[in-house]
Amino acid sequence: MTASFIRPDVRRIAGYTPGEQPQESGWIKLNTNENPYPPSPRVVAALREAVEGRLNIYPDPLARRFAAKAGELFGLDPDWVLPANGSDENLTILMRTFVDPGELIAYPYPSYILYETLADLQGAAHERLPLREDWSWDHAAVRNVIERAKLVFVPNPNSPSGNRWSDDDLLKLVPPRGVLVVDEAYGDFCDSPHRGELLRAAGGERIVLTRTLSKSYSLAGVRMGFAVARPELIAEMRKVKDSYNCDSLSLAAGLAALDDQGWMQEHAGRIRRTRARLTARLRELGFAVVDSQANFVWATRADGRHREIYEDLKARRVLVRYMHFPDARAGGGSVDGLRITVGTDAEIDRLLEALSEILASATDS
Amino acid sequence: MTASFIRPDVRRIAGYTPGEQPQESGWIKLNTNENPYPPSPRVVAALREAVEGRLNIYPDPLARRFAAKAGELFGLDPDWVLPANGSDENLTILMRTFVDPGELIAYPYPSYILYETLADLQGAAHERLPLREDWSWDHAAVRNVIERAKLVFVPNPNSPSGNRWSDDDLLKLVPPRGVLVVDEAYGDFCDSPHRGELLRAAGGERIVLTRTLSKSYSLAGVRMGFAVARPELIAEMRKVKDSYNCDSLSLAAGLAALDDQGWMQEHAGRIRRTRARLTARLRELGFAVVDSQANFVWATRADGRHREIYEDLKARRVLVRYMHFPDARAGGGSVDGLRITVGTDAEIDRLLEALSEILASATDS
Repeated sequence: MTASFIRPDVRRIAGYTPGEQPQESGWIKLNTNENPYPPSPRVVAALREAVEGRLNIYPDPLARRFAAKAGELFGLDPDWVLPANGSDENLTILMRTFVDPGELIAYPYPSYILYETLADLQGAAHERLPLREDWSWDHAAVRNVIERAKLVFVPNPNSPSGNRWSDDDLLKLVPPRGVLVVDEAYGDFCDSPHRGELLRAAGGERIVLTRTLSKSYSLAGVRMGFAVARPELIAEMRKVKDSYNCDSLSLAAGLAALDDQGWMQEHAGRIRRTRARLTARLRELGFAVVDSQANFVWATRADGRHREIYEDLKARRVLVRYMHFPDARAGGGSVDGLRITVGTDAEIDRLLEALSEILASATDS
Repeated sequence: MTASFIRPDVRRIAGYTPGEQPQESGWIKLNTNENPYPPSPRVVAALREAVEGRLNIYPDPLARRFAAKAGELFGLDPDWVLPANGSDENLTILMRTFVDPGELIAYPYPSYILYETLADLQGAAHERLPLREDWSWDHAAVRNVIERAKLVFVPNPNSPSGNRWSDDDLLKLVPPRGVLVVDEAYGDFCDSPHRGELLRAAGGERIVLTRTLSKSYSLAGVRMGFAVARPELIAEMRKVKDSYNCDSLSLAAGLAALDDQGWMQEHAGRIRRTRARLTARLRELGFAVVDSQANFVWATRADGRHREIYEDLKARRVLVRYMHFPDARAGGGSVDGLRITVGTDAEIDRLLEALSEILASATDS
C-alpha cells in the first residue's frame, strides 16, 4: 500500500550490495580492498586528542583545514577541493550536481557498477563503455556514447582489473558536453602516482578527480574522501552536499593521515611488493592475472571455476570477491573472476596455501 | 563556460547557509542549538577504545548494533530504524526516496528553510504552509496544499518558534498521497517527550520520524541521526543511502550515547530549567517569548530592533541567530526575531547581562 508513494526509480532497483563485512573476527578479509596495515600513529594521536574535544559543537561546514592540506598535496588552493564522507558521497554529489533525470552517464565495463545504481537513483540513463579483452580502450567504438554523456566515470586504476590507463586515454574520454570523473580510489598504489596533472592539461577544466582515504591511508572505517577540480565546479558541488557532511573526528583523522605521507608511502610500497609476489604465485597456480597498479589483483582461470574457488576459500574463512559481469563481451558473453585484495604477507601466505589445497583436491577428484 | 554543464536546478540556487561556526574560541555560541554540556563519559570511553581499533576496516554498512539500540528506545525492531550521517542525511534520503522532479513538498512557515533547498536540489516544487501568528495550525487553510504534497516536513518542536504541536495536529498533516516527516531534532527537550506513539496511530504507516544525536546527546561534532518508520519505508530509504554512510567512530559514539539515557535526561532537564529562567528574564527585558519545548527560545520585540541587537551581541562575542522570514504573513508581511540557544547558566547570564547593557544604552540614546 505504501509502495505507491516510493519513487518508481527507487522501487524498481535492488540497491547496491557492498562486499561482505563479517562482524566477527577470525576472517582473512581480502574482499573489499581494505588496507591491511593500521593508519599512521599520528592519526591515532590526533583522534585521541579529538575525542577529548568539544564533540557537542558542529564541525567546520567547509572543512577548511582538511581542504587546505589536501590541496597542498596537489599543489592547488583549498577551493579546488571538496572533502566528503567517503568517496561514495562525492560520487553521489557529482551525480546530483551534473546529471538531470533522463540524461546519460557512461562508464567502462566491467568496472564499478555502483555508478549504475547512482544513475538509477537520479533517474538518469546509463550506458556501458565496453573494454577490449586486454582492458584497453577502443576509443572509436565508445565515441558515440561519450558524445552523448553528461558524466563519464572512469576508475583509474580500474576495478576489478587493477590496470591503469594513460592520461592520453583519459583525455579522450572527456565528454564534449559534460564532465569526466576520474575515480582515483586506488591512485596511491600506482608505481608512479599522479597528482592532478590531468587537471592542468587541455580538457582538464572538465575533469573531476576523486580520492579516498579508505585505501592508501588505511581509513575505511572513518569515511573520508575528497574531490579535486576547478573551483567553479567545486563551488556547485558544494551546494549539493549536506551542510556538515564531514564529522569532527573524521576530519581530525583525515588531516593527520594526509600529514604523514611517509607512513602512507611506506605501506603502499609494502603492498606493491606483496602484489608482485601474489601475482607471480597466482600465475604459477594457473591463474591469468592482470598486471595491477592497485591494491588488488584480478585473477581468472581457463577452467572458469571462479565461484567454486570463492566458496571453497570462504569455507576456510578466507574472503575474496567473486565478481560476475554479464554481457561484457560482444555477443553477450560474460566475464567473471576473483578480485583479491593485497593483504599482509602473512594473509597472502594463508590465501595461497588455501588455494593450493583447493586446486590440489580439485585435480585429485 | 563550464556553467552549462551544471544542472539548472543547482546553478540557480545559492545553497543553504548554516549558522556561523567561528573556528576560534572565546565566543558564547547560542546560534546553532548545540548542547552546551559534554556528551556522556561513556561516549568518550567508547571512543577512546574505538580509536585504537581497526580503522582500516569498513564499518557495518547496515549499522545493525546502533539500529537495534535506537529501535529499543522506541520499542521497535531494528528494521524500523535507518541510521544516518546526521539528521540532514536522512532529510536528503527522504527527498530522494519519495519525491520525483516536479512533485510537491510542503512545510510550515516560518520553520526550517533547508527543506526548500533540498526540494530545489531534487527538482521538486515546494509550498509553504502558513502558520497563524500564535504558531498554531489553520488546518482548513493548508488542506489544499497537503492534498497535493508528496512529502510534508514538520519540525516538532518547531524552529525557530520552539512550540510543539499535538499528535492530533500532526495526523491531520499526513498527505493523502504521500508521507509526513516529523523532524524531532528537538524532541528530547519536550516536557513529555514522545517515543514513536505517532507511528502506531491510524495514519502512522505513512509517517517517518527523524532524530538526531546532535542536540540532546551533545554530539553535533560526530554526525549521527536516525529515522524511524515502518520497515517497508525504511527498506526503500536504505537503497538510497551511500553504502557506508556512518563511520565506525560515530557509530561507537552514538551507541554509547543512546546507552546512557540517564546522562541525556539529566542535561535535558538542566536545559529545561535554564530555558524557563531565560524565558522569564527575556520577558522582563521587554521581549515577547514563545513558550518553548526545545533547547532554544524565539524572542521578538515590538520595536523590531532584532538585527541591531544581534549585531550588538556579536560585537560582544555573543552569537545568537537573527532570523528573517519574508512573506510570512497574509499580505506579505515578514517575521523576524532572535533565536537563542539555551546554553549553560553562566552563558545565559552573560547573554542577559549583554542584553541589559545593549537595551539600556538604546534607551539612553
